[in-house]
Amino acid sequence: MVELDFSKGNGLIPAIAQDYKSGKVLMMAYINKESWGKCLETGEVHYWSRSRQELWHKGVQSGNIQKIKDIFVDCDNDTVLFTVEQIGRAACHTGFESCFYRKVDKNGDFIIVGEKIFDPDKVYGKK
Amino acid sequence: MVELDFSKGNGLIPAIAQDYKSGKVLMMAYINKESWGKCLETGEVHYWSRSRQELWHKGVQSGNIQKIKDIFVDCDNDTVLFTVEQIGRAACHTGFESCFYRKVDKNGDFIIVGEKIFDPDKVYGKK
Repeated sequence: MVELDFSKGNGLIPAIAQDYKSGKVLMMAYINKESWGKCLETGEVHYWSRSRQELWHKGVQSGNIQKIKDIFVDCDNDTVLFTVEQIGRAACHTGFESCFYRKVDKNGDFIIVGEKIFDPDKVYGKK
Repeated sequence: MVELDFSKGNGLIPAIAQDYKSGKVLMMAYINKESWGKCLETGEVHYWSRSRQELWHKGVQSGNIQKIKDIFVDCDNDTVLFTVEQIGRAACHTGFESCFYRKVDKNGDFIIVGEKIFDPDKVYGKK
């Protein structure tokens, strides 16, 4: 049975979500033991929200859940890579397909390269 | 000019290296301000080694450096994605192409799925 090493990061380890078809890196967030257990049990990605300090079933509010296709663990047992089917095509709360929708150009500035799939105001409501 | 948020992780943020051609996720390690500066300056990935507590010019010992093709920053400015040309074809110190060379099977055990490119005993010397 796989044992992850949660000791280095105060109980948290980074988890990368990658689209299983396109290979695009969609996001990176953290998991703890509880969310790891939920991932294995449900087949859907559950992170740990550092800002809210709670279990985060990704996509529950927007509908954009992540169905786990495969799970890979790195050589140190302290990082996880999920290949996922991204329901709703967008992983980022900004509405972009990937959280990594900004590229650093030669002057060190951002250029937007990602595709915006949804309007976050409509999905989450205006604040 | 891009400003990364190093505040949440005690001066460190995660950096993912992805092969620019195959889309394979090769590894994840950490960068601090100094390594970020070195990445921009040299075009080669420099991490911060948490175990050695020093700047880590990836591949200097093995020859397997990572040439940066593009840099993406996530929506929170606290994770970086490098697309890289992996010199020597292997990123992992175990000799595998990717650090994520083990897949979790249905019983929760590891199966090795990655390709071993080099023998680490030959590259780093026996301990």
